[in-house]
Amino acid sequence: MAGPCAVESEKQLMEAAKAVQEAGASILRGGAYKPRTSPFSFQGLEKKGLELLAQAREHFNIPVITEVVDPHDVSLVAKYADILQVGARNMQNFALLTSVGRSKHPVLLKRGFSSTITEWLTAADYLLAEGNNQVIICERGIRTFEESVRFSLDISSVPVIKRFSHLPVIVDPSHAAGHYSLVPAIARAAVAAGADGLLIEVHPNPKEALVDGLQSLTLSDFARLMTELKAIAKSIGRYI
Amino acid sequence: MAGPCAVESEKQLMEAAKAVQEAGASILRGGAYKPRTSPFSFQGLEKKGLELLAQAREHFNIPVITEVVDPHDVSLVAKYADILQVGARNMQNFALLTSVGRSKHPVLLKRGFSSTITEWLTAADYLLAEGNNQVIICERGIRTFEESVRFSLDISSVPVIKRFSHLPVIVDPSHAAGHYSLVPAIARAAVAAGADGLLIEVHPNPKEALVDGLQSLTLSDFARLMTELKAIAKSIGRYI
Amino acid sequence: MAGPCAVESEKQLMEAAKAVQEAGASILRGGAYKPRTSPFSFQGLEKKGLELLAQAREHFNIPVITEVVDPHDVSLVAKYADILQVGARNMQNFALLTSVGRSKHPVLLKRGFSSTITEWLTAADYLLAEGNNQVIICERGIRTFEESVRFSLDISSVPVIKRFSHLPVIVDPSHAAGHYSLVPAIARAAVAAGADGLLIEVHPNPKEALVDGLQSLTLSDFARLMTELKAIAKSIGRYI
Amino acid sequence: MAGPCAVESEKQLMEAAKAVQEAGASILRGGAYKPRTSPFSFQGLEKKGLELLAQAREHFNIPVITEVVDPHDVSLVAKYADILQVGARNMQNFALLTSVGRSKHPVLLKRGFSSTITEWLTAADYLLAEGNNQVIICERGIRTFEESVRFSLDISSVPVIKRFSHLPVIVDPSHAAGHYSLVPAIARAAVAAGADGLLIEVHPNPKEALVDGLQSLTLSDFARLMTELKAIAKSIGRYI
Repeated sequence: MAGPCAVESEKQLMEAAKAVQEAGASILRGGAYKPRTSPFSFQGLEKKGLELLAQAREHFNIPVITEVVDPHDVSLVAKYADILQVGARNMQNFALLTSVGRSKHPVLLKRGFSSTITEWLTAADYLLAEGNNQVIICERGIRTFEESVRFSLDISSVPVIKRFSHLPVIVDPSHAAGHYSLVPAIARAAVAAGADGLLIEVHPNPKEALVDGLQSLTLSDFARLMTELKAIAKSIGRYI
Repeated sequence: MAGPCAVESEKQLMEAAKAVQEAGASILRGGAYKPRTSPFSFQGLEKKGLELLAQAREHFNIPVITEVVDPHDVSLVAKYADILQVGARNMQNFALLTSVGRSKHPVLLKRGFSSTITEWLTAADYLLAEGNNQVIICERGIRTFEESVRFSLDISSVPVIKRFSHLPVIVDPSHAAGHYSLVPAIARAAVAAGADGLLIEVHPNPKEALVDGLQSLTLSDFARLMTELKAIAKSIGRYI
Repeated sequence: MAGPCAVESEKQLMEAAKAVQEAGASILRGGAYKPRTSPFSFQGLEKKGLELLAQAREHFNIPVITEVVDPHDVSLVAKYADILQVGARNMQNFALLTSVGRSKHPVLLKRGFSSTITEWLTAADYLLAEGNNQVIICERGIRTFEESVRFSLDISSVPVIKRFSHLPVIVDPSHAAGHYSLVPAIARAAVAAGADGLLIEVHPNPKEALVDGLQSLTLSDFARLMTELKAIAKSIGRYI
Repeated sequence: MAGPCAVESEKQLMEAAKAVQEAGASILRGGAYKPRTSPFSFQGLEKKGLELLAQAREHFNIPVITEVVDPHDVSLVAKYADILQVGARNMQNFALLTSVGRSKHPVLLKRGFSSTITEWLTAADYLLAEGNNQVIICERGIRTFEESVRFSLDISSVPVIKRFSHLPVIVDPSHAAGHYSLVPAIARAAVAAGADGLLIEVHPNPKEALVDGLQSLTLSDFARLMTELKAIAKSIGRYI
């Protein structure tokens, strides 16, 4: 899964969609509703963003994933997206989980950045308890004392989840690293550790991104990374 | 502010209300909607709980505070409660913060258990940006490696907040400690450090509490603690 | 216990000793051997520092505490100091603990900044196992994600230690806070929580201190703080 | 680098040495001096352990690495070992670092479990400042809130170190994971992320190990892991 952090314009999204699909990504990501630390930061294009995602989905015949933040927007977002994303800050937003669980739409549940693996799997129970069993969980880094990265990617979570749960687990190296130069090494590690997928931020022009540009790969860097990842996957008997 | 973690029954709430008021508490707390880690735990009495809180408020002429968890319940909860509480797990639930901010009702914003002080004050900006300036913030412990408590009460947050913000800051020693035996020492420390208030869990019969019994003080322990706190407050020129 | 982080000169130490004694401190602190993060920082006056401490001890008739960092310096340092300090970075330096344990000299054992309370008490066992039972333990803040302080003072450790151990526990607010403006509030909290003492950095001229000037109180700020602490101690039935 | 956590007997060490060499390990590890959290745990065979290591080195013609814990044991240990190890708990034991730095012997410096990467590289400066430039650094997991592992392996540290330092960096998955079942996935991730080596605990009979048996691989599990690691290394253009 790859694409820009936020949907910004038709041009930006279509360029990104084309490039990530060509490089081998099978799902397009893009945020329409952005939960931001400050109320004065760009909050996403909202409904307009959903429409652009739908347009890209149709044009490139690629499924899309996008985040939902309000329990009462679930049915609206589910009309446009193939997978609903619940973000790290909402991992224990139980009103949202219950609403998403009822939708029966595939869900990607990000790990809260200070949640234990037990709390994360228990949050997934809110989805399962409503009868929604199409749940993917996503490690995206935890908060530690280390200052050289935004979050410390908890690579051990991959084998721990594999041992205690049947849910597919994917890894988001972009939000963890916070810097594009660290993304490829963490992505390679995730595949080698046994992750079932990756969620990577890619932007046609990271320097002009409205959100998280510093952690986004360029289109060509992403293509190069995909080549590396395919080789590692093959070496452990898996295929991308 | 004192009272039971969850409203369980008329008898339980009225007993607690009577006792905390007699011991000197000025606001009654009680949860009607309980955000629980697991979907299979008791989730609160919901609307029935709100009605019991309103009954206690009228009978004892004491203001009440209770938590709201869904942006679309804000106006309902605001009919029954004098102060709306946003819990630690929802500190960055921006849809909820925006809705609470629009209500113009006094709000207590708990610190997320892995949020920096900067993120906490920036979350408060979501309330202030909607024109709601009756905001109290509440330190309730942060997640660390230490295992002898549920959360480590960050006592330094009190002087840090006093230095960088004009918002009143109170301390919840009960959720931090996780055990009643540690609550009095932390409560005394909070008053000595300059906190503007406390939020303490008190239950007529902690052993039978449906939620968080182990960290609740008995009615008599709470009365004894209030005597200690009054003495400390007086020694630093403040009054309870 | 109060005094400068590092012994720098006769003038500095004698001024500090005089002032802290007048304000009511009962033990003088001062570092002769300084364990510094970088090899290129000031490492202390070493033996010359010990001699200055001995001079202040004699002149003012006040006991002194200083740090020892090498197992083979223990007998040397014990000639000059009344209390040996084992620093946070050496809490699990078992060769040093064994050597200090054998000396039978009173010891102050600081908590490692990422050690659990269990590990801390178990480190004290290295001293007790050698027959040294004059052990004081000192909370000085733990490493967390919070960025507004150098370390987060774990106020809960005071009641936890009181519950599980008979060892006296004191608190060092200076190294935790990392900034003089936060020291008084944390010191007051420590006394209110039941700490048996404090270890505070005081310097005649913090702006010119070679080590940790930003967290040192001036002589007059220290005197003012002592007045506040005496009032709080009295309010909970203790005396300074 | 592979071998038992502690040298326990001639039979144990020789069996382990033979097996790890056959599987492709190029350096034998084994602890003679064991820094243990409690003084009542097994502390290592000390000088006898060094002699057994020297015997294995001669018999199998394989270099050995072992830990040194006291600054005054450095020259003794350097007689028997090809690489001196400074453990995580001693990363900021500056007396030890200075002594090891003076020896000019190759050194492996483990990361303190709560040290930032900056502090870790600055600790290496203590070695470099004494003129010892044969320094390998070793990531072994950091302390976080996550409870399913002993320490959280900080996989990001590999690319961060590669960016800011020229020192070779290796990874110890065994102490991080704390459980043998997690070691292979973390080891594979480390190679894929670009680590220059691994330090893995292997024991002929983990169930009877005196130290850390639960995290040790059996001889056959280690051989299987080496096959996987060689495939991953090859896929990214490196060789084991």
